[in-house]
Amino acid sequence: MEAKPTTISYVETTNMVLPNDTNTMGHLFGGQLLKWLDMNCAISAGRHANRICVTAAVNNVSFDVPIKLGDLVIIKSHVSRTFHTSLEVWADVWTENQASRKLTKCNSAIYTFVAVGADGKPTEIPAVIPVTDEEKERYEGALRRRQLRLVLAGKMKPEEATELRSIFPR
Amino acid sequence: MEAKPTTISYVETTNMVLPNDTNTMGHLFGGQLLKWLDMNCAISAGRHANRICVTAAVNNVSFDVPIKLGDLVIIKSHVSRTFHTSLEVWADVWTENQASRKLTKCNSAIYTFVAVGADGKPTEIPAVIPVTDEEKERYEGALRRRQLRLVLAGKMKPEEATELRSIFPR
Amino acid sequence: MEAKPTTISYVETTNMVLPNDTNTMGHLFGGQLLKWLDMNCAISAGRHANRICVTAAVNNVSFDVPIKLGDLVIIKSHVSRTFHTSLEVWADVWTENQASRKLTKCNSAIYTFVAVGADGKPTEIPAVIPVTDEEKERYEGALRRRQLRLVLAGKMKPEEATELRSIFPR
Amino acid sequence: MEAKPTTISYVETTNMVLPNDTNTMGHLFGGQLLKWLDMNCAISAGRHANRICVTAAVNNVSFDVPIKLGDLVIIKSHVSRTFHTSLEVWADVWTENQASRKLTKCNSAIYTFVAVGADGKPTEIPAVIPVTDEEKERYEGALRRRQLRLVLAGKMKPEEATELRSIFPR
Amino acid sequence: MEAKPTTISYVETTNMVLPNDTNTMGHLFGGQLLKWLDMNCAISAGRHANRICVTAAVNNVSFDVPIKLGDLVIIKSHVSRTFHTSLEVWADVWTENQASRKLTKCNSAIYTFVAVGADGKPTEIPAVIPVTDEEKERYEGALRRRQLRLVLAGKMKPEEATELRSIFPR
Amino acid sequence: MEAKPTTISYVETTNMVLPNDTNTMGHLFGGQLLKWLDMNCAISAGRHANRICVTAAVNNVSFDVPIKLGDLVIIKSHVSRTFHTSLEVWADVWTENQASRKLTKCNSAIYTFVAVGADGKPTEIPAVIPVTDEEKERYEGALRRRQLRLVLAGKMKPEEATELRSIFPR
Repeated sequence: MEAKPTTISYVETTNMVLPNDTNTMGHLFGGQLLKWLDMNCAISAGRHANRICVTAAVNNVSFDVPIKLGDLVIIKSHVSRTFHTSLEVWADVWTENQASRKLTKCNSAIYTFVAVGADGKPTEIPAVIPVTDEEKERYEGALRRRQLRLVLAGKMKPEEATELRSIFPR
Repeated sequence: MEAKPTTISYVETTNMVLPNDTNTMGHLFGGQLLKWLDMNCAISAGRHANRICVTAAVNNVSFDVPIKLGDLVIIKSHVSRTFHTSLEVWADVWTENQASRKLTKCNSAIYTFVAVGADGKPTEIPAVIPVTDEEKERYEGALRRRQLRLVLAGKMKPEEATELRSIFPR
Repeated sequence: MEAKPTTISYVETTNMVLPNDTNTMGHLFGGQLLKWLDMNCAISAGRHANRICVTAAVNNVSFDVPIKLGDLVIIKSHVSRTFHTSLEVWADVWTENQASRKLTKCNSAIYTFVAVGADGKPTEIPAVIPVTDEEKERYEGALRRRQLRLVLAGKMKPEEATELRSIFPR
Repeated sequence: MEAKPTTISYVETTNMVLPNDTNTMGHLFGGQLLKWLDMNCAISAGRHANRICVTAAVNNVSFDVPIKLGDLVIIKSHVSRTFHTSLEVWADVWTENQASRKLTKCNSAIYTFVAVGADGKPTEIPAVIPVTDEEKERYEGALRRRQLRLVLAGKMKPEEATELRSIFPR
Repeated sequence: MEAKPTTISYVETTNMVLPNDTNTMGHLFGGQLLKWLDMNCAISAGRHANRICVTAAVNNVSFDVPIKLGDLVIIKSHVSRTFHTSLEVWADVWTENQASRKLTKCNSAIYTFVAVGADGKPTEIPAVIPVTDEEKERYEGALRRRQLRLVLAGKMKPEEATELRSIFPR
Repeated sequence: MEAKPTTISYVETTNMVLPNDTNTMGHLFGGQLLKWLDMNCAISAGRHANRICVTAAVNNVSFDVPIKLGDLVIIKSHVSRTFHTSLEVWADVWTENQASRKLTKCNSAIYTFVAVGADGKPTEIPAVIPVTDEEKERYEGALRRRQLRLVLAGKMKPEEATELRSIFPR
């Protein structure tokens, strides 16, 4: 199973914030952004794995910049690393104000998917070859994030999370 | 500002999985569930804070059980703890199969909201009084989860995360 | 076929009124509420009957309180009585104002469903055991409402509607 | 205030039943039809009253014919009678099968609207002039249906419902 | 295969412009109107052909009148001519202002469909019999529009477009 | 007013075909694609003009390749030329099959927009600087297409359409 470069899994979408996507202050609901992110990342995962990929987990996502009615939301995602049958997908989010056309980086989000075969069972997938420095950095950090996710879900003991422990000083 | 019991913030919704909510295997998109969860939790936060509450973060969520077309998704959420201007909201998710009527616990999700005033700025909110054992346990764990969220977002140094460090043995 | 208590068919949902649900005065369309009610009641019917239940009739529903953009609509429904293959489902509707958090009882609605088997044909269903005084009262009135529905639909002669005639004095 | 003929309030729409409108048997949800009917009737009411009209009540509606995925639903509505500030709107529903192109009359539905002014308060509206025999028959029956609606809503005593009593023999 | 009069393919729909259909100036998106037109015309095509009809082309459409939030959009379409396996469908669009009830003709749009059989392949369809003067005029012009469409799509050489050349003077 | 390169107006979106977007053969409705195209092109126009841009016309679009449920639709658009207050936007459409991951070029579509100021009136916009050969070719052809559009809309006499006549031999 041949490894694939990150370039093949890049997916970009541009959404406009419509009235039904906003609260009574005219700001985008966080849940709508989470839905757009999930779809974008699922397509990235599917391109890399050449299989249907289902969401396994959404990792810590912060919403720091309010996005307004009529603003554009630009999402770019790519597979950052794979682990046997699962894929970590990294998404970057920008907002573009409709009046000023100013582009603001909102946040980054990380989703985990599992590739499934026709029988609905997890299936092995090829590795990722990171190319740019940013992609390499994300590739390196993926193992630490995976351990964090498994510890939080009670599927790994904290003392086994060797990568993760390195960020917490004695 | 008087503390409020968790009971006032309980919110329940029952959704049916419709065709547009599913992938080509007939399973619910993770992003749709994240959107439903955000709305449910935002209403819980709003009831407690008596203010508009905007999503600040979504913490680690796992999707372990595939939910099928036509299944029901039952979500119950409540405010588990507050921190000055932010609220942690805990949601439990069950799925009910339309054929067997079997109810399955899918997962729990934790969202963080910030209460905002008419000027859009964060505003102080009352404390929570946990009642049941489960609510007390969630209240206790909230500080640890908050530190984890802040460390991951680069807003707190790992060595300051006193609560968090306790789960990682030397 | 064993009778079931009303408790198993209680279904609750909480919806927020979004821009597309409102007319140009910013009030919820009656039709959107009718749609939410139908879905809620259909789930109640399905839980009791353990079958797919299809809407057979919607009885007289009044809309007395305008519901505004951003308000919450809380619906609770339960099966009030069954008749061989049909079920009467009773729904109560409250609205919660987003600014004042005041809860207002809007109205009650009554829907009738028919349980259908895999062949799409009506199928027999168990009886209901009402528990609270309110449930008993609704159970008692169901026969009268059924006769009214059948008379109005031309499926029963007014002189056969024994229960119904009692409310119209000579 | 000059009376208007029924012709000016006729409104017709043709909807196709899409996947999200159907249950797991592939049949149209009753609630979706109720929503389409409400919108169609509200437009009829608005045309006659030249005001925004809000739904006041939906009268007894029966669903006798299952409508399938891909079928067309044709709705025609018109104002059948007015009462000071309220309007009765009558809608006829046909379904057209996509394979056979056969047109089937499904049912008739009756909605009541109230015309409101810019201040949101009920406002007087012109009378209706029925033209065809069917329109005249519907005009005649409207008073009886209005009394039934008011009696059921507890806003009129049964003994005052003079028109209504005529259909129930002693 | 017997020719059919235009009357059998007339389809009318009335849509209200809702918040999600509008841009930040409160005007209907052109794309939403194109979608409504396509659905209306597809139903006209299906009624004439008694087959599923898929969109083959949309011809030149102009948007000259801004349509506002809350306005009604009335669309009437009919098959104007057929060519072996394809149908030209003509749609007229009016807008009705909710405040003034004034009806304004917006534009006309022309879509081309292909009738397909159960195997998804184009299938022959009956001819159209135009009745009114307007229908006859549209029937006459259809050949010229078809040649224009084929020339623009590179499927016909300009010198073969005999009908089309007549409108461009030497 | 300084001319801008085409690069600033490139907009890309990736949509997945969901059940409600498809007809009973499981193929994407043409109208849904027209809607996605309009939104994508409107964003391109807005980026170039730094104003709200409203759809003025959609030019001849052909649908040659059926797009299936679950397939991806990738749209890339850019401003190809401007004329005082109007902009021609060119969009290319690819479909990506979910099973084979094969990318197929479906078609190209051309939309015309008008830039409007805060008063809703057309407002002047900067010129476009085409860069690649393809962009230059599209820039050149835009005048001919504009004349065709104006002639078809009856706003220009065929004998004045100097560019257009060149494609029709004597």
